Amino acid sequence: MSVKQRQAPTGIMTPELIESEIAGGLVATDAVATYALGLGDDALILAHRLGEWIANGPELEEDVALGNIGLDILGHARSFLTYAGSAWGKTEDDLAYFRSEPEFRCRQLFEQPIGDFAQTIARQLIASVYFDSLYRALMHSTDPTLAAIAAKATKEVDYHLDHSTQWLLRLGLGTDESAFRMQRGLDAMWPFVDELYRAEPHRAEPAPSGELGAELSAQLEGIAVDPRALRAEFDAVVPRLIVDAGLTVPKASAARGGGRQGIHSEAFGPLLAEMQVLARQHPGASW
Amino acid sequence: MSVKQRQAPTGIMTPELIESEIAGGLVATDAVATYALGLGDDALILAHRLGEWIANGPELEEDVALGNIGLDILGHARSFLTYAGSAWGKTEDDLAYFRSEPEFRCRQLFEQPIGDFAQTIARQLIASVYFDSLYRALMHSTDPTLAAIAAKATKEVDYHLDHSTQWLLRLGLGTDESAFRMQRGLDAMWPFVDELYRAEPHRAEPAPSGELGAELSAQLEGIAVDPRALRAEFDAVVPRLIVDAGLTVPKASAARGGGRQGIHSEAFGPLLAEMQVLARQHPGASW
Repeated sequence: MSVKQRQAPTGIMTPELIESEIAGGLVATDAVATYALGLGDDALILAHRLGEWIANGPELEEDVALGNIGLDILGHARSFLTYAGSAWGKTEDDLAYFRSEPEFRCRQLFEQPIGDFAQTIARQLIASVYFDSLYRALMHSTDPTLAAIAAKATKEVDYHLDHSTQWLLRLGLGTDESAFRMQRGLDAMWPFVDELYRAEPHRAEPAPSGELGAELSAQLEGIAVDPRALRAEFDAVVPRLIVDAGLTVPKASAARGGGRQGIHSEAFGPLLAEMQVLARQHPGASW
Repeated sequence: MSVKQRQAPTGIMTPELIESEIAGGLVATDAVATYALGLGDDALILAHRLGEWIANGPELEEDVALGNIGLDILGHARSFLTYAGSAWGKTEDDLAYFRSEPEFRCRQLFEQPIGDFAQTIARQLIASVYFDSLYRALMHSTDPTLAAIAAKATKEVDYHLDHSTQWLLRLGLGTDESAFRMQRGLDAMWPFVDELYRAEPHRAEPAPSGELGAELSAQLEGIAVDPRALRAEFDAVVPRLIVDAGLTVPKASAARGGGRQGIHSEAFGPLLAEMQVLARQHPGASW
């Protein structure tokens, strides 16, 4: 593969900096772009779900908090998608607004409906623990652009994790009703935990199973994080938090998954339609 | 009227500070609360509309910018509504989620659909010029809580105004298509400018006309800003900007208005339903 690869500056990486690096010649390899696309889609779809809370209740104060968290995560999405697009001559907007459902690579946790507030907190807890360990590991990637994106994200995810942990405890140790809802939220989200920690498929084309694309995988040695290595941290942290909150660790069996191969749950279609309708009404708009 | 009134601290006022002041005995008079309710509703409904942009395209970069602007404005809404609620033993959430359509007091500009990006920029330009002059004047209110809310808001609105001005020029001076859309957006929003600068009715009950409630009005002397005094600034600034952007100042006649009396356009019902559905499913939730 004769792709030009240029050193990106270390430190903090924003979408705008990545764009200027791309203008200066930075190009992701196909393998790196495929990996970045998956991480970007996870963040993009979660950010969309969190945006649904802005001024949609049930508490204005929390709408602001969730809105800010959503905007942080949208920033991560933009960085990953901008970088991924450099491999294929596409912009972040091309990737966000002009792919069809099977071309999206998000794991299924992120596309689930927001549900009630407790369900949103359950997802945020699971997602924040996952992002926290993922981005801390990705900071040591030999790909400097991925490392710099992760360095920025990890500071923000630290706050997100704190936010969802506080709410887990508050709801779990609150009223009978709040504990009931928090437990129900955890039960609803739990089947999607398993997929988060499966190996990255590292392949662009849809595939029915989650097996590793051996060739691409070799190219990502030292670059990508293997989520399987992060599972122990989840198991060490989350069940204990749930027990501390007076709740029960769910025993739900794992959902089938397949998000990284373009297989999505029924909640995804309506989300995608809503997300893309404006851009598709006005394709290629530079206005 | 024997309402207890306490000095609020000067300086920057957040919803949380207002809550703690209320816990300490701060209570708005009925007249002040009625005035603050109108300002809060303007901001709340605009923030809801801006939230619709989060990850809904057509540009991720702009989704972030509009999302941040929406969260700023939601902050203003929360401050005004929290303060207004102190008069009636209601929280910001009571006021946002448990009023019916005729009880909302927003002027109709803010409830209009987002339309395309150019239409959103047209509204943001009009709204930012209005908020900018309103909050700069309100900083001199003899009501220290209103003055402190305005002091915080004015710094943020300064950036919002810059953002929409830059976009007006960029779209107006861009392609034929972008200029066409920017003009169309201005034309669509222009009928709602007039209502912004009408006198505050200063009355809680719905009234068919916009006449001033003389008694309440007298109580708000030195406290409230008369929007009629701000119109000259709009006329001095906005038409010139429009011409600088190579566009035409619209000649559309004024919409009937009546938002401050609880009269709303047809776009308002669906917005309200969406905004309130979650809170009403779970009334009184402290979880």
